[in-house]
Amino acid sequence: MGKIFRVNMTNLTCKVEDVPAELANLGGRAMTSSIVAAEVPPTCHPLGPNNKLVFAPGMLTGTPAANSGRMSAGAKSPLTGTIKESSAGGTSAQQFARMGIKAMIIEGQPKDDKWYRLHVTKDGVTFEDASDVKGKQNFAVIDAMNEKFGKKIGVVTIGVPGEERLAAANISVKDPDQKIRSHGRGGLGAVMGSKKVKCITIDDTGAGKVEIADPEKFRAAAKIFAKGMLDHPVTGEALPVYGTNVLINILNEAGGLPTQNFKYGACEHHDMVSGETMHDTIAKRGGKTKHGCHAGCIIQCSQEYVDEAGVYITSGFEYETVWGLGINCMIKELDDCARIDNAMDDIGIDSIEGAVLIAVAMEAGVIPWGDGKETLRVMNEEIGKCTPIGRILGNGTASVGQAFGLTRVPVVKNQGIPAYDPRSVKGIGITYATSTMGADHTAGYTIATNILKVGGYVDPLSKEGQVELSRNLQIGTTAFDSTGMCIFIAFPALDIPEVLPALVDMIAATQGTSLTVDEFMGMGASILKKEKAFNTAAGFTNEDDRLPEFFEYEPVAPHNALWDFTGAEIDEVWNF
Amino acid sequence: MGKIFRVNMTNLTCKVEDVPAELANLGGRAMTSSIVAAEVPPTCHPLGPNNKLVFAPGMLTGTPAANSGRMSAGAKSPLTGTIKESSAGGTSAQQFARMGIKAMIIEGQPKDDKWYRLHVTKDGVTFEDASDVKGKQNFAVIDAMNEKFGKKIGVVTIGVPGEERLAAANISVKDPDQKIRSHGRGGLGAVMGSKKVKCITIDDTGAGKVEIADPEKFRAAAKIFAKGMLDHPVTGEALPVYGTNVLINILNEAGGLPTQNFKYGACEHHDMVSGETMHDTIAKRGGKTKHGCHAGCIIQCSQEYVDEAGVYITSGFEYETVWGLGINCMIKELDDCARIDNAMDDIGIDSIEGAVLIAVAMEAGVIPWGDGKETLRVMNEEIGKCTPIGRILGNGTASVGQAFGLTRVPVVKNQGIPAYDPRSVKGIGITYATSTMGADHTAGYTIATNILKVGGYVDPLSKEGQVELSRNLQIGTTAFDSTGMCIFIAFPALDIPEVLPALVDMIAATQGTSLTVDEFMGMGASILKKEKAFNTAAGFTNEDDRLPEFFEYEPVAPHNALWDFTGAEIDEVWNF
Repeated sequence: MGKIFRVNMTNLTCKVEDVPAELANLGGRAMTSSIVAAEVPPTCHPLGPNNKLVFAPGMLTGTPAANSGRMSAGAKSPLTGTIKESSAGGTSAQQFARMGIKAMIIEGQPKDDKWYRLHVTKDGVTFEDASDVKGKQNFAVIDAMNEKFGKKIGVVTIGVPGEERLAAANISVKDPDQKIRSHGRGGLGAVMGSKKVKCITIDDTGAGKVEIADPEKFRAAAKIFAKGMLDHPVTGEALPVYGTNVLINILNEAGGLPTQNFKYGACEHHDMVSGETMHDTIAKRGGKTKHGCHAGCIIQCSQEYVDEAGVYITSGFEYETVWGLGINCMIKELDDCARIDNAMDDIGIDSIEGAVLIAVAMEAGVIPWGDGKETLRVMNEEIGKCTPIGRILGNGTASVGQAFGLTRVPVVKNQGIPAYDPRSVKGIGITYATSTMGADHTAGYTIATNILKVGGYVDPLSKEGQVELSRNLQIGTTAFDSTGMCIFIAFPALDIPEVLPALVDMIAATQGTSLTVDEFMGMGASILKKEKAFNTAAGFTNEDDRLPEFFEYEPVAPHNALWDFTGAEIDEVWNF
Repeated sequence: MGKIFRVNMTNLTCKVEDVPAELANLGGRAMTSSIVAAEVPPTCHPLGPNNKLVFAPGMLTGTPAANSGRMSAGAKSPLTGTIKESSAGGTSAQQFARMGIKAMIIEGQPKDDKWYRLHVTKDGVTFEDASDVKGKQNFAVIDAMNEKFGKKIGVVTIGVPGEERLAAANISVKDPDQKIRSHGRGGLGAVMGSKKVKCITIDDTGAGKVEIADPEKFRAAAKIFAKGMLDHPVTGEALPVYGTNVLINILNEAGGLPTQNFKYGACEHHDMVSGETMHDTIAKRGGKTKHGCHAGCIIQCSQEYVDEAGVYITSGFEYETVWGLGINCMIKELDDCARIDNAMDDIGIDSIEGAVLIAVAMEAGVIPWGDGKETLRVMNEEIGKCTPIGRILGNGTASVGQAFGLTRVPVVKNQGIPAYDPRSVKGIGITYATSTMGADHTAGYTIATNILKVGGYVDPLSKEGQVELSRNLQIGTTAFDSTGMCIFIAFPALDIPEVLPALVDMIAATQGTSLTVDEFMGMGASILKKEKAFNTAAGFTNEDDRLPEFFEYEPVAPHNALWDFTGAEIDEVWNF
């Protein structure tokens, strides 16, 4: 049945509500986007009292389904001004699911300057004084909570940039190894800060299991599903061995690896930071080459990166971050990149936005190109402490571009463009342009088909077929993002015919419904349209669905490619 | 006939073109907005190579018509993202007009890092090395040019914030007394900086007179027009004696004087900085209580403000600036305000945006409330030198609000809201919300009718009649802004029936046309719609025509007034 916790920060109350009919059986992105669309005035100030921050575990979270342990967080984004959903691993999603919490809505705003810790149990939320952790960064918050409650406590927290409401601030979630996974994109940490919520502790004592209406159907489907994951070369081989960073060499080869703030599409020193090099380095030093972001993950694409002495530096060291620092900022030493990644986890800055904005800061002359030591110092001492330059940077890529009057600023709807050049991988450009959440590769990951030849092949350098590809992937991803599943299930789902029906069967079996694949994808399409309608009501138009102008007049080597879609061509994405 | 100078900064050429038929007989805002709308891609980056900066004297500039010596500058604004026109006094407009230059279009962008001085003569433009003045502030640039060419040289210049492309940077124009008037709003100084034009020198040697087709008709109309100006109590009495700052006490009395970053609508210490106090202070100290911003002004609302020893501090010390610093920032010492005003002229920051952003910075805790000495230091040492905090501030009010995660940020379309509280003077709120240029009181100055009872009376606290009032004033102002006339001609034009026909007769007599009042106002309406269409094509919607949310939930004393228009009510402005 489940319930919704409605947490009001104006009067410090928590109401435990039944799930209304229109939200029944939703989860993840479908849940957060439906609540935000229904309850948040689209034109409100993202940091004001009328915005709401919503957490929701996925439809399958807490079940034995492989890779289903992710939480969605949603709100109106202070970075993009659009609706926003951001998914994270960690332990909180499964805790929520087992306690029957389908969503937690944080609304209102205290009128004084007190900071709070929300303490979540199966019975509701209490409002605790957070002055002991106010001003601390994320790892210190986790340490303090572990000390207070023991290591089983769930922790969701923001660093100082989140407290200070900087638009690149993320929300950090403790993972099974006491490290950090993040609701990274869109500045949701600033929304949490605007509510004066420093952290959330989750004590799932007395939680039950997630009920499954038809256990036999579930088991049968789960087996097919897991087999598909293990059989597919991407989820069964590439990701488990090399992690997401396997993409460095692949994108370099394709000429789609944005280098030195999107000046080039390939990079001479690519192998210094590639997934292969990273794997061998970790293996040689005695770190862990495999690691899951949540219990039940069978891909284990994360890792624990250690230094020469075998001492832990970071985990969840993803392709996007390695690309952003190692290639786009030209920081050639992988150890430097790893330390910066850990610093971003600690201070609570989205590691994609963080890496993209540092490259723009390098273009502005704030940091020398490739200077990893200075970048690390800037993260901890400037952004982490919210100095003036730290505020310019901590507000994201567009903020840096504006502060220094630059035009080569890779953002869509103010959000930094990730690790694939849209001029030479054109499908992903369509996704960046039209995603309801600003530039976001995960919103419709055409790299699968443009580069990895998963789900067929669409030539990345040709305009043909890209709009349809992006449209279909955006619809499908919206559905997948609602399940609590890791996005990588898309690879087997695109190539192995049994996988998607098995996923849908697991949902149907859990909920005791007769959900079909068509209905499931239809749900994705309808949520995507709901998000688009929110953005339209907030004042966004087709003219906002455009890439930065410099992609249109600055060709990128090695293919000498330009971004050459017309507005009308791009807008066809919405023709469904 | 006149000509257009087309200055290409990419290849350093100047083409002298005939005025095409569709621009014939246009001037000022009608000319700049028509050229920008026709030639600038609405979605281009305002600081990129595809934006254009256009200067155009008014239709009557250079004629003997009183108060006609103003220049329009236009571009896509880096502050608002909208089309922008900003008008200034000074000597350049009349120089252009006498040389027959109907417009100068600066387009393209150098690819290297060289800075240029454009030297304008009747024959065209030459491109001079500006390394001698690069890095200098405005008064030093003017001194250097005066030394090089003599005091008759026209000078248009940007300070260091303009070079650094900060969005609050204005364009400064030398006035008849070697002081500064400004194309203030919308960050046009940053556009000039993006073209690598540090300054423009104007040598009008050999210039003729502006030809008047029907001198007799002109003389008769000019006489009626000037009499109207002198007869009206605002232009004939209040402004000449007290300057624009006469409004402090009036707005305080009306409860529409935004105080301490729009927290209150009246201010205890209002008389410390009122027009009356200012007049008496200047008179006692031996400064000038009257001063014109351009040759031919018969209002003389400017002044020369001096210190206790009679030494010059500033001129063009307007109500908006005095309000912004003295009331909204709570800087009680008029001498401090005057020194800050002069600093803003020197570094080239819009004095409205500058004052509004300082109040937000005070709310953020960057500067103590009311600290004039620290504000002066911040202007010169931080904004003027483009330090990190200077860049946050120099990019305008919205930039400060974002950097510090604030919600009480008085902007529309990112431009700072001027000196009249929209909750208690509701007509001006409609103008702020719907102006094609972001929050701008001059775009449709309802204060005339809401407060000064010019052109009738519409109760400022009631919603009734405000939309129609703002619409009519916005149309009329667009027409007036095209003439080269000072905006204050609106006062007699609204109250004295002969004045508007006389203005139109002067234009018709100059051009040798049969222009009627209806045609003249129709031109205003059509230019306004052209501007709106540009903004729509740039991605603006009705949802952008809204005031900041806090005006809707934070009532303002003494009337306890809220902003209570619905979106649909506001949008009726465009129903013409």
